[in-house]
Amino acid sequence: MSLPAETAQRLRAVLGPRLSETAADRDHHAQSEAFHRSPPPDAVAWPETAEEVSRILGICNEAGVPVIAWGTGTSLEGHALPLSGGLSLDLLRMDRVVEVRAEDMQASVQPGVTREALNTELRATGLFFPVDPGANASLGGMAATRASGTTAVRYGTMRENVIALQVVLADGRIIRTGTRAAKSSAGYDLTGLFVGSEGTLGVITELTLRLQGQPEEVAAAVCAFDSLDHAVECVSATIQSGIPMARIEFVDAASARAFNLHSGSSLPEKPHLMIEFHGSPAAVREDAARFGEIAAEFGAEGFDWATTAEDRARLWRMRHGAYHACLALRPGASGLITDVCVPMSHLPAAVHAAAEDIAAEGLIGPILGHVGDGNFHSLLLVDPANPDEVGAAKRIATRMAERALAVGGTISGEHGIGTGKRGLMGAQHGEGWALMGQIKAALDPRNILNPGKLVPDRN
Amino acid sequence: MSLPAETAQRLRAVLGPRLSETAADRDHHAQSEAFHRSPPPDAVAWPETAEEVSRILGICNEAGVPVIAWGTGTSLEGHALPLSGGLSLDLLRMDRVVEVRAEDMQASVQPGVTREALNTELRATGLFFPVDPGANASLGGMAATRASGTTAVRYGTMRENVIALQVVLADGRIIRTGTRAAKSSAGYDLTGLFVGSEGTLGVITELTLRLQGQPEEVAAAVCAFDSLDHAVECVSATIQSGIPMARIEFVDAASARAFNLHSGSSLPEKPHLMIEFHGSPAAVREDAARFGEIAAEFGAEGFDWATTAEDRARLWRMRHGAYHACLALRPGASGLITDVCVPMSHLPAAVHAAAEDIAAEGLIGPILGHVGDGNFHSLLLVDPANPDEVGAAKRIATRMAERALAVGGTISGEHGIGTGKRGLMGAQHGEGWALMGQIKAALDPRNILNPGKLVPDRN
Repeated sequence: MSLPAETAQRLRAVLGPRLSETAADRDHHAQSEAFHRSPPPDAVAWPETAEEVSRILGICNEAGVPVIAWGTGTSLEGHALPLSGGLSLDLLRMDRVVEVRAEDMQASVQPGVTREALNTELRATGLFFPVDPGANASLGGMAATRASGTTAVRYGTMRENVIALQVVLADGRIIRTGTRAAKSSAGYDLTGLFVGSEGTLGVITELTLRLQGQPEEVAAAVCAFDSLDHAVECVSATIQSGIPMARIEFVDAASARAFNLHSGSSLPEKPHLMIEFHGSPAAVREDAARFGEIAAEFGAEGFDWATTAEDRARLWRMRHGAYHACLALRPGASGLITDVCVPMSHLPAAVHAAAEDIAAEGLIGPILGHVGDGNFHSLLLVDPANPDEVGAAKRIATRMAERALAVGGTISGEHGIGTGKRGLMGAQHGEGWALMGQIKAALDPRNILNPGKLVPDRN
Repeated sequence: MSLPAETAQRLRAVLGPRLSETAADRDHHAQSEAFHRSPPPDAVAWPETAEEVSRILGICNEAGVPVIAWGTGTSLEGHALPLSGGLSLDLLRMDRVVEVRAEDMQASVQPGVTREALNTELRATGLFFPVDPGANASLGGMAATRASGTTAVRYGTMRENVIALQVVLADGRIIRTGTRAAKSSAGYDLTGLFVGSEGTLGVITELTLRLQGQPEEVAAAVCAFDSLDHAVECVSATIQSGIPMARIEFVDAASARAFNLHSGSSLPEKPHLMIEFHGSPAAVREDAARFGEIAAEFGAEGFDWATTAEDRARLWRMRHGAYHACLALRPGASGLITDVCVPMSHLPAAVHAAAEDIAAEGLIGPILGHVGDGNFHSLLLVDPANPDEVGAAKRIATRMAERALAVGGTISGEHGIGTGKRGLMGAQHGEGWALMGQIKAALDPRNILNPGKLVPDRN
């Protein structure tokens, strides 16, 4: 497909050479980290200002041309795939840190700034942006998927850490949501509505983020358990005890093996917890001691403390490399990654049931996750050419989601819906899913913003 | 006015004697803590189940009869006033704590449960619900206004502490939003949309709340400063230092005088901070010591530590009684209460400018607030029969709001919009206010839910 000639001409007047219809540029924007694929978009645009985004949306809205916002392309559910063609709006040139207000612990950034770029910029201030999904994603994309990751147990997700937005609506109107105050009771929480809306309600062109002070002391460790159940039960007990964990990550024996092969570590091939404490020296000592007592009750062994910044960086680099490390367990395989989140008291049973199900289907599927939130993943490794394996992986994923829903959990803790999870939205939200569709129709009546995602099909 | 006869008949079939058209019941639902007033509703209903609320809304939606949800009537901006008649939906009979899930630190409650009733129910669990706006408000009302109060600096507002809702929509559909998991990336944040929507988008019939563990140690104190500026600058410095305050409240010299007259305290007539620390004994000691050092730099004196639970209860009862204590400074006066919230770095200048403005207009207007969030109030005491005084108070309030907006703050930190602040919504949100109107129109096309509040008038 290609853009209507008049639309292409009008867009070119706005963008000049920053509009591309080459096959290479189009194909790049039909890729996805996971195994979701789609036809390429008709064209790719690289706007540099909110005003350009506004003009582009105005043009596309008039013509009924889909617009799909694009960041680093690291989402895992095919969020940014142009399912019905249209224009991919690549926001990576909007990569300016607009302002750092250290005294208010806030930064305003354009959507194409990545979390690592922001943290590099913040280094001299003693502040950092805590949300850490692993991938060096763009902050606009992280807001759009309500990303979280390893530190959410302490600092919250993008929901808690985005306090204001500039958004361009489908018809080109530019609005600002939220304020720079710590809280507000002035009307509907539009910021919260756009965070997690996956590009279906508007295009984020600026974000105001809450920053954190660098903790005075950081301590991280890894420890092994004799069984998956003991490791996960230790997490539940730790969270219920109220110890303020900065990170508490579970990886199973298969993940440990993957790390050893991929990162050169020498972990025992057992389930592990990777933990981190932030605070004053006294608080970190106290928290670590209390955690040690709980872990000992569950038979933890081989505590390995990462005392230097380098050791900690190595530990979390290993954890962040889990996706690729696990993929390498079966060369040539594709990964179907699951992402449920359950209330803490149900976590041990949920992880246990997932592990049994994967074993029963005979797949390789390492389990790991941000268990301090009750959030865990399995990376199901399948030969994409083998329909039996793909079918088995999909069955496992669906059953994990159904078991999560049965105990009041969610089908997605942090990856979002995209194309991969849309079939489960009705099961989770019931009539609430129709309500999401009503909101979408009110804000985007011509359905140009990332059509085919998140909300029900329109009647 | 009265209900259309057929509507009254259909409602009576649902509610029996729990529908009242007596003058006493109607007048009770046209009152407000502040000086907003309205004509009475045409009738009052006391539903007992979500299904009854659903049937009531279905009936009223068909007839185009306004429905105004009512809790304890303690809101300060006239939120629950039936501006154009209709049915007041008194939810106080829906007062059941549905379930406490201590292991997940959650409780599900009906909307008429008050925060004190919930905390009484939780006493044996070691858990508590932290949001504390002063008044013993209903939790449904607190969610609807996105309430916060003294502890928000540590535990967040209703935005952070409501994790799931049951809501009845204008057409009678019953939906559930959110999950029991700690986080979710599955679609639009409908919970966040209803929290703070002031009864204009739906009626909350059940809330799932996040609970907190009772801190091992609690320490509270009050200390005096020689000037308002020093007290408020001490707050900014404390928050910027990262000390995890559980409460940090400012009261000015006039407030201290009001406490002495009303609560029998003997505070020096100076600006004060009232503070509280929660944590382990070691952490509380450390935090208190660090705060003490900062406070000393700003000349704090007369530190009075409330070491027993009774002393602390007395301290916070005094603070919670501030509204009535300050009103008593001028017998017969009405209070116009302001509620701005600004970024922390702007707090000292904002409080200073408000104090100067009040003095210049010649009004009595004690200033106090939840300054750890940048949120402060003035209670402007006026003779309601004196238009000059009322005009002066309104000018002061408007200028406070305008100054807050000029530095990126908000016209309401915690009281909400209701009827009192609606005229300032355009100034704060610009085109975003129109967007709120679009959302309202999509969810409540006949405009029956609390009409005349929060959103712009419909064209």
